[in-house]
Amino acid sequence: MNYLLNTYSRFDVEFIRGENATLWDKNRNEYIDFTSGIGVVSVGHGNIRLSNAICDQARNIIHISNLYRIQPQEELAEILVKKSGIDGGVFFCNSGAEANETALKIARKYGEVNGEIKRYKVITLENSFHGRTISTLKATGQPKFHTYFGPFPDGFDYAKDIKDISNKIDDKTIAVMIELIQGEGGVNPFDKEDIQNLAKFLKEKDILLIVDEVQTGIYRTGEFLASNLYEITPDIVTLAKGLGGGVPIGAVITSLTDVLKPGDHGSTFGGNYLSTRAGIEVIKILDEYYESGMLKEIINYFDSKLVEIAKEFPNLFDNVSGFGLMRALKTHKSEIRDEIVKKAFEEKVLVLKAGNNAVRFLPPLTITKEEINEGFDRLKSAIFKIEGKQCEN
Amino acid sequence: MNYLLNTYSRFDVEFIRGENATLWDKNRNEYIDFTSGIGVVSVGHGNIRLSNAICDQARNIIHISNLYRIQPQEELAEILVKKSGIDGGVFFCNSGAEANETALKIARKYGEVNGEIKRYKVITLENSFHGRTISTLKATGQPKFHTYFGPFPDGFDYAKDIKDISNKIDDKTIAVMIELIQGEGGVNPFDKEDIQNLAKFLKEKDILLIVDEVQTGIYRTGEFLASNLYEITPDIVTLAKGLGGGVPIGAVITSLTDVLKPGDHGSTFGGNYLSTRAGIEVIKILDEYYESGMLKEIINYFDSKLVEIAKEFPNLFDNVSGFGLMRALKTHKSEIRDEIVKKAFEEKVLVLKAGNNAVRFLPPLTITKEEINEGFDRLKSAIFKIEGKQCEN
Repeated sequence: MNYLLNTYSRFDVEFIRGENATLWDKNRNEYIDFTSGIGVVSVGHGNIRLSNAICDQARNIIHISNLYRIQPQEELAEILVKKSGIDGGVFFCNSGAEANETALKIARKYGEVNGEIKRYKVITLENSFHGRTISTLKATGQPKFHTYFGPFPDGFDYAKDIKDISNKIDDKTIAVMIELIQGEGGVNPFDKEDIQNLAKFLKEKDILLIVDEVQTGIYRTGEFLASNLYEITPDIVTLAKGLGGGVPIGAVITSLTDVLKPGDHGSTFGGNYLSTRAGIEVIKILDEYYESGMLKEIINYFDSKLVEIAKEFPNLFDNVSGFGLMRALKTHKSEIRDEIVKKAFEEKVLVLKAGNNAVRFLPPLTITKEEINEGFDRLKSAIFKIEGKQCEN
Repeated sequence: MNYLLNTYSRFDVEFIRGENATLWDKNRNEYIDFTSGIGVVSVGHGNIRLSNAICDQARNIIHISNLYRIQPQEELAEILVKKSGIDGGVFFCNSGAEANETALKIARKYGEVNGEIKRYKVITLENSFHGRTISTLKATGQPKFHTYFGPFPDGFDYAKDIKDISNKIDDKTIAVMIELIQGEGGVNPFDKEDIQNLAKFLKEKDILLIVDEVQTGIYRTGEFLASNLYEITPDIVTLAKGLGGGVPIGAVITSLTDVLKPGDHGSTFGGNYLSTRAGIEVIKILDEYYESGMLKEIINYFDSKLVEIAKEFPNLFDNVSGFGLMRALKTHKSEIRDEIVKKAFEEKVLVLKAGNNAVRFLPPLTITKEEINEGFDRLKSAIFKIEGKQCEN
C-alpha cells in the first residue's frame, strides 16, 4: 500500500477470488460480501454471463472515439430511455460524479438559454452526497465536504428536508437535485407523497428535478429506478454504480434533449464498447431476475433477516431502513455501529458504514439465500460478542 | 442515434471489428485507424495479451470497494511511481477530467494547510484543455469553454505562453498546470529549455508544477512520460487515455503523499481490479515494445511519412508538429483541415482535428509499417482530390 495515496482507511485484506456474494482472500479465508463494492457488483462477482460479454467485447473492440457511432452505446441508450420512462436521450460518462457534473451542466445551460433572466441556482439537501469533483462536493449538502479545495463554485443552496425545498427557491433557481434514498447520508428514504408533491410543485414552477440514482438505480431498490418506485418522472436521472457490474460507467438520462449541442460536453471513454456492452448484459440479467420474481423473493428474505436481527437486539438497534437491497440497521450510537462493522469483518462478513449510525447493506442483487443465511449467522456472531461486552459494561 | 444526446457530430459509421490499427465497419469496409480513440487504444484494437488479461480478471473479480486492499491497484501504483521517477504515491480514478480534479484538490489543500496565507490560485495556459467537469473547464484556458455552465469556480488565471507564467504569479498562487504538448489545442509542444527553466523557477518559489499527461503519457511521445522526454520531475502528473488500453482509468502520481487524508477524496470505481489489471498489462506490452527498439523505429517511420507528405503538398501544409506518435500536419487554413479530415474518412483512413488548423494523428503505438503505408496511401488519395479542387479554383 506504500505506493498509494492515503485516501482510505483500508481493511488489511486482499481478495483474490470472487463468486457471487462470496469472496476469498489470499489465505483462502471465505467472506460473505454484503457490500458489492458499494453497490457496484450488482450481478455478483465472477458472473459468467457478464464476464462472457466482457471477454467477447475485449477480444474485438474495447474503445473508439465518440466521433464514430458505437453500436452497444446506442443500444444501451435505447434500453435506458425505454425502461426509465423518460422520453429523451442519454449521455455516457465514467462515474457518478461525472454523471452529476453532466446533470448540473444540462440544468445550468437550460437555465441560461431559456427565459428572461439567467437561472443557475441548484438546491440540494443537507445530508446529501453527489460526488468528489470540486463542483459535486459543493453540491453535496454536508459542510464537512466544503473545506480545503476552494474556491468552490457558487450557485448551490441547501434545504433541510424535502418540505424545506420550497423555502429555498428563488427566481434564480433552475433545478433541485436529490437522492430518493440518501445512501452515504445514512440510507434515508424520503416519503413517497412528499416526493410526488415536490415533483408536481417543481413542474408548475418550471424548475428541473434532477434525481441522483447513482446508488439507487438499476434495480437496487427493487424497481429499475427508485424513480419508478416513487412513481415520478424526473427531468434528469443520473446513474453509475450498478450499471456496469464493475466496469466503470456513468450515464445521464434526460428529457432535455435539445440543451447540449456538439462541443458543449464530451467524454473520451464515456459510452465505449466495453462499458456499454457490460451495461447491456447487466440489465438483461437483472430484467430476467426481476421478471422471474426472484429479485422480489430475495429482497423479502433479506428484509426478514434484517428485521429479525433488529428485534433480537433492541439494546443496539433503533430500526431498519431502506428499500430493496439498499438497507441499513440503525444503531443507537455511532460507536456501536463502528464496532459492529469491525467485528463483522473479523467474523468474515463485509458490511458498510453510512451516515452517523447506519450499518449499511448493499449485497449483490443476485445474492443467494444460502449466502444471506451464512452472512447473517456471522453478523450475529459479531453482534453477540459486542452484546457480551455491552452487558459487562 | 436517436436515444443519445447530441453532444458529438458523428461520422455515420459503425465499426464492428478491430485488429491493431485496422477497423471494419458493418459493411465489411476496412479502415486504417490513425486515431486510436483519441490516444486511448495504445496497444491496438483486439490486442490478445490485453484481452486475455481483461478476460481472466472479469471471470474472477472485477471490482471491490477501496475499503479493502486491491492487489493489481497496488502493483500498478508501484509501476507508475517507479517508471515516472516521481518518488511518491498514486490515486486512481476513471478519466482525465477526474485525474485533473484530483490534482487541483491536492494543490489546493497543500496551499491551504501550508504557509501563513492560503494559496489557491492555479495558473494554466491559453489554448490548454484539461477536461469537461465544471472546474476543469474553468482550468481550461480557452474562453469558449467558460460559457453556459457557470457560476464557475474562481481561482484560475491564464498565461499566454510558458514565459508569461511568471507574470501571472502572485502570493495566492499555489500551482501551475500545463500540458507539455497541447493536444486538443493543436499538437503544440513547448520548448524543452523553457519548460526546464519553468520547473526550476517554480521549485524556487515553492509553487507546484502539475503536468497534465492525460494525452502525452504512457509512451505516446516515445518515452514513458512526456515529463521524462523533457527531463523534469513535476510535483503532480495526471494520466488517463492510453493507460488502460480502452478500459476507463485515470491516475495521479504525486510526491505530495501527505496532503490527502482518509475521507478527503475517493472514487468508487477508481483503481478496481479490471482497470488496474488492464493498466499493468498495457505497460508490460509497451515496456517490451520500447525496450526492443520497435517503438522508436515505428515513430521514425511514421515521422518520415508525415514529413514526406508535408513536403509534397507545400500549398496545403505549413509544417509537421508533435513528438512520438502524437503528431500533426498543420494546414494553412482551417477549411483545408476540415476538408482533409472529411475526405480522409471517405478514403477510409481515420484522422482527427485539433486546434484551428491541425490534422492530428494518434495511431495505436503498436501500429505496423504496413498499416502506416496503407493509411498514408489513402491520406494521399484524399489530399490529391482536394489538391485537384484547389488547382481548379
